[in-house]
Amino acid sequence: MNQIEVFCPGSVANVSCGFDVLGFCLEPVGDVMKVTKTETPGVSIGTILGQDLPTDPLKNVASVAVTALLEAHPSKYGFRIDIDKRIKPGSGIGSSAASAAGAVFAVNELLGKPYSRNELIQFAMAGEALASGAAHADNLAPVLLGGFTLVRSNKSLDVIKLPSPPELVATIIHPKIELKTIHSRAILKNTIPLEKAVQQWGNLGAFVSALYTNDYELLSRSMKDKVIEPYRAMLIPRFEEVKKAAIDAGALGSGISGSGPSIYALSKSIKIANQVGDAMKNQFDDLDLEYEVHISKINNEGIKILH
Amino acid sequence: MNQIEVFCPGSVANVSCGFDVLGFCLEPVGDVMKVTKTETPGVSIGTILGQDLPTDPLKNVASVAVTALLEAHPSKYGFRIDIDKRIKPGSGIGSSAASAAGAVFAVNELLGKPYSRNELIQFAMAGEALASGAAHADNLAPVLLGGFTLVRSNKSLDVIKLPSPPELVATIIHPKIELKTIHSRAILKNTIPLEKAVQQWGNLGAFVSALYTNDYELLSRSMKDKVIEPYRAMLIPRFEEVKKAAIDAGALGSGISGSGPSIYALSKSIKIANQVGDAMKNQFDDLDLEYEVHISKINNEGIKILH
Repeated sequence: MNQIEVFCPGSVANVSCGFDVLGFCLEPVGDVMKVTKTETPGVSIGTILGQDLPTDPLKNVASVAVTALLEAHPSKYGFRIDIDKRIKPGSGIGSSAASAAGAVFAVNELLGKPYSRNELIQFAMAGEALASGAAHADNLAPVLLGGFTLVRSNKSLDVIKLPSPPELVATIIHPKIELKTIHSRAILKNTIPLEKAVQQWGNLGAFVSALYTNDYELLSRSMKDKVIEPYRAMLIPRFEEVKKAAIDAGALGSGISGSGPSIYALSKSIKIANQVGDAMKNQFDDLDLEYEVHISKINNEGIKILH
Repeated sequence: MNQIEVFCPGSVANVSCGFDVLGFCLEPVGDVMKVTKTETPGVSIGTILGQDLPTDPLKNVASVAVTALLEAHPSKYGFRIDIDKRIKPGSGIGSSAASAAGAVFAVNELLGKPYSRNELIQFAMAGEALASGAAHADNLAPVLLGGFTLVRSNKSLDVIKLPSPPELVATIIHPKIELKTIHSRAILKNTIPLEKAVQQWGNLGAFVSALYTNDYELLSRSMKDKVIEPYRAMLIPRFEEVKKAAIDAGALGSGISGSGPSIYALSKSIKIANQVGDAMKNQFDDLDLEYEVHISKINNEGIKILH
């Protein structure tokens, strides 16, 4: 095999009570990446469609991630990466993770699969580190493993795939302002009240339980975030109104996707998810603000091979 | 039915990563309580064997809890409570929870079961408030529901029963110093580093997942507490040595039981749990300190009716 084309899905990280640990994978939103084996060693970026991103292999998250992989598993071949970049960087649905994960996944296939999907996360993290200044796995894990994932530890890279209740559908609204992860990080406090931390881990424990038992009511009750959301909400226009509109329209819960500005909601059917999308849009209609809405089932597979 | 005798088990709360939310129920350790319906309304304490506890109904956790139940569900009868108190107060294995939960459970039976086990928690919390100065459900939930339990919220009292992996066995060592919950609370900081909070909820999410999947390795990796244990450890003689000895002897993990001074460990068989108990004891052998060791399967049923 000398060439492979893969679909690299978007993802939602920092799912309400699961700041830095809980994420899920999207279905219809994602990049398409083509990786071609070359006779000359090294990694190069070919064409990038859709977005203005660096083609210098030292500055592109995809090539940086592949370089980390090739350091651990040297090859006499080289790899050229062509990207149809459909997820806008800074949107909050894992743009850099899609590129980094997609690239290492594709190269791993071309190398004859020396690594499992879980093992590939460590290499993709090099790309995430370039993009956001910190190596974190909370978007990479859902992109590579699919479904809901929990990063138990970023340090020892202990990642668990959680079950996805079959009826869940996500609504994402992306108001088109750009928010860099690095800035959304800076606004957070270094310490948090113990009382709020206890509420947060009580909610996360309940959320994980609800995923195993398909308990949508419990899922809904546990989609709370009193620790991070109050700070980041102020970076997102009309966050509180959009969230309230989503819940009033029937969503189980709603919160900031990743570090924003996208806002996600989870609902129990496609019909409700569509109504939720309409209700969220309405909050922006009198503003001179572009936005995009995605309706997505939970993608339980993650990255897919197209050709 | 005019009289009932119940077994009120001990419990382990604050299970490592689950401070204030995660607990489990013990099997062989517990009080025996006899409640008798009387013609005169009101609640009274009859005899208390084993411990020196108040018989004034306003000062005993059992009668205070029953009074809360009777306020919600008035009865023309009264109730006399006789207690064979085998769990020492201040031991860290839910002595007050056993009394409060046992009393409301028994009276509820004599009243014809107007409340479910889950609903009884709210009344038993009045007893816990008397004992520790704060109404909390993290020992009451496992005593009433059995197995592992998660208190998602103390405020709205949202309690979930989690599954118990069948092979788990607890070892508890109780060094006989008395530690009041109120003092172990006072030593804690009001704020904690965000980074440690994230680790804690990553571990709790993983612990809950491991309970559903019987993943003992994951359970072991997630039994960590960098938030509470470092402070409370200094109130317990040789805590670090006992914990290390337990893990070296094969325990999946070990930590402070409740607010101490008891130390618990979880292991994958009775054989290992016994070896763990011996290893823990050895750490106290050159000290002039009395201790007790309990080996217990997870009690999946909770409070039991004896007669």
